[in-house]
Amino acid sequence: MSVIQQNLSTCMASSASSFIANYSFENIKSTKISIPGKFKAVVKCVAAPERTAYKTEVSRNENMAKLQAGYLFPEIARRKAAHMLKHPDAQVISLGIGDTTEPIPEVITSAMSKRSYGLSTVEGYSGYGAEQGEKVGDIKRSSNGREVGRTLERDPSYPAYVDSSVILGQTGLFQKDIEQFEKIEYMKCTPENGFFPDLCTVGRTDVIFFCSPNNPTGYAASRDQLTRLVRFAKENGSIIIYDSAYAMYVSDDSPRSIFEIPGAKEVALEVSSFSKYAGFTGVRLGWTAVPKELLYSDGFPVAKDFNRIVCTCFNGASNIAQAGGVACVSPEGIKAMHEVVGFYKENTSIIVDTFDSLGFKVYAGKNAPYVWVHFPGQGSWDVFSEILERTDVVVTPGSGFGPGGEGFIRVSAFGHRENVLEACERFKQLYK
Amino acid sequence: MSVIQQNLSTCMASSASSFIANYSFENIKSTKISIPGKFKAVVKCVAAPERTAYKTEVSRNENMAKLQAGYLFPEIARRKAAHMLKHPDAQVISLGIGDTTEPIPEVITSAMSKRSYGLSTVEGYSGYGAEQGEKVGDIKRSSNGREVGRTLERDPSYPAYVDSSVILGQTGLFQKDIEQFEKIEYMKCTPENGFFPDLCTVGRTDVIFFCSPNNPTGYAASRDQLTRLVRFAKENGSIIIYDSAYAMYVSDDSPRSIFEIPGAKEVALEVSSFSKYAGFTGVRLGWTAVPKELLYSDGFPVAKDFNRIVCTCFNGASNIAQAGGVACVSPEGIKAMHEVVGFYKENTSIIVDTFDSLGFKVYAGKNAPYVWVHFPGQGSWDVFSEILERTDVVVTPGSGFGPGGEGFIRVSAFGHRENVLEACERFKQLYK
Repeated sequence: MSVIQQNLSTCMASSASSFIANYSFENIKSTKISIPGKFKAVVKCVAAPERTAYKTEVSRNENMAKLQAGYLFPEIARRKAAHMLKHPDAQVISLGIGDTTEPIPEVITSAMSKRSYGLSTVEGYSGYGAEQGEKVGDIKRSSNGREVGRTLERDPSYPAYVDSSVILGQTGLFQKDIEQFEKIEYMKCTPENGFFPDLCTVGRTDVIFFCSPNNPTGYAASRDQLTRLVRFAKENGSIIIYDSAYAMYVSDDSPRSIFEIPGAKEVALEVSSFSKYAGFTGVRLGWTAVPKELLYSDGFPVAKDFNRIVCTCFNGASNIAQAGGVACVSPEGIKAMHEVVGFYKENTSIIVDTFDSLGFKVYAGKNAPYVWVHFPGQGSWDVFSEILERTDVVVTPGSGFGPGGEGFIRVSAFGHRENVLEACERFKQLYK
Repeated sequence: MSVIQQNLSTCMASSASSFIANYSFENIKSTKISIPGKFKAVVKCVAAPERTAYKTEVSRNENMAKLQAGYLFPEIARRKAAHMLKHPDAQVISLGIGDTTEPIPEVITSAMSKRSYGLSTVEGYSGYGAEQGEKVGDIKRSSNGREVGRTLERDPSYPAYVDSSVILGQTGLFQKDIEQFEKIEYMKCTPENGFFPDLCTVGRTDVIFFCSPNNPTGYAASRDQLTRLVRFAKENGSIIIYDSAYAMYVSDDSPRSIFEIPGAKEVALEVSSFSKYAGFTGVRLGWTAVPKELLYSDGFPVAKDFNRIVCTCFNGASNIAQAGGVACVSPEGIKAMHEVVGFYKENTSIIVDTFDSLGFKVYAGKNAPYVWVHFPGQGSWDVFSEILERTDVVVTPGSGFGPGGEGFIRVSAFGHRENVLEACERFKQLYK
């Protein structure tokens, strides 16, 4: 049994619905909901039912139980909240979750604002748009292009790749001893192999998730490496899900897209988004590129099924967000996005220089907004806790991205400049 | 093998991605894409591959092949486009797809506009929001709350219920002779049973899709009927997916929410959206209510899994759309939404009166923006074609919603007043 539920719900939402029941949205302001932090709100929702509670006869999706208790980022949020409760006066700086902090350039927000107002006019109003997105630029909400089969994941890698595979039933159980799910091949990426997997040791899978520049290691694969990856996929008949969410951060001649590699169109699709280019983490817009040359084993085009599913289950991104996307790819928008990216990359340099000066081995940091710092022989969560406890700075434990991340932390360069500088000062105090 | 792909892709999108490849979003303006109609664009994408094409070894999701060729609304769009090609001077009026046409009230768009501009300021910027939606009102992008198992569908019903079940592999093959999928129970809703199924004849299923006021029949279930439905679900241990997208259109004392029925919280979840209340079909925002009392057979709360899946796979609606949702539920917003709904209901009355005066049997029309007109002994697609050919008005063939809709057409009340009046004049000419 598998589940698709695109939409969210909690017990809080049921109060929203009950307004309709009484035809009185008016009550909404008097509906007090206590949400000190989002994690707590979730907890509130799932209070243990009483013993006498009625149960339906619908079986739970058994894959859900395989998921590990804490999705990484809520777990970090929980620990941060606990720290703040314990130290209410602490000036906590978060370089943990990779969330953007800088305002969206006005050339982009003014386009969204204009589109919003336009919806109040007869000429400017539009209803359902093309599910494929608006014309110029074909911008779409994205970030989660998923395919299935036995899956291949880089280790460490972005946790949603793993969890979505688990939910869909593509994996076996979580094996506590080796901290891996059955039926997922983890492609170890460590300093020893230059953060690129040794493809000779990797088995055949249907799907290969590959993010470059990588989250969390910040490492951008070279043209030669990606050429080998495409060849590997072709020899095995696999499909690469290539995540280029950080492509604009590339400074050297590493490819910005898998489609720079000859032959990639027959073995890869690519997902990306405006989240990290224009600060759209909250606006929510991205796109997925599925070449028409990409075919299932029976010769059927992947793009055709992808389109059908999206038209049936998704229906397209908000037209206002799409107006922002169109502005992003205007000449002024591109210039503005480069400025945003440039700012975060300066943050990256500041963090790299700090850890360098303290004698740590720092990896990548050239082509991404993340710095991957090595703490040999130490547990990632231990380092996380020490840094939080002693400097009030939140980072991300490398092991949260997979067993290959053990002994590392990821420091995010998304932050206001003064916060990044202050955090670096505190690191210097701690590790001097 | 099953597939989740939240996001869209077509061959057109791959050109968007290649801009990144060359670091030159600048080229986007020179990328000419010919999209006369959205359906055509899709066709363009899936041009038959050459004989020598490389194929991956990834199997296609076999459920996709079960889907019937045309999702209803693209098929209508195709026929409309063909008609316009044949009659280029025709003044075509569309009362087919249930798409809103009236501007969004300014109290709502100004909130979205303000939120957009605010994102350009340090104080107004925010990144990732709570996946559960913003605080006041707990507004979420919705419209597709889905659960699985053998499913129970009203007949006729909204086609996405069926297609999503097919994609997930919850059905068998489509049986051409009876025009139904195996393993879906169709609950016939006809004038004979007052558009409410005879539950004595319905088998047990995991999930019951139920939309009230119904799309397409426009019929709102009574309190007594919904009480029987909840009792039926409880006796069978089923979960009701209750779609209240048209609840604000209810004029009589029919319930606006399944949660008005005692005991419903143990057997139902409810989905709704601002699409038809505030013209948000393009803005994209809704919500899902999953009571904490709703439990799987093992006692695990459905809400908890729902929350986890949404946090992992969706990440929440656009913050700008959510600002609009918050404005919708302000006192001014509610008043404005009632005006929008009232306008469309006047359209409904005009259409009902027209078909009444022509001697047709018209059903519902009191609690919904749809009018369900009976053409006894005629095929729905034949009526569709006759109306299109002779009056240039697009309606929706009832059989597109399921075999129980054969012999009916759905006329949508979403339209500018002058278009509705003009369409009704043409109906009078045709059927006088």
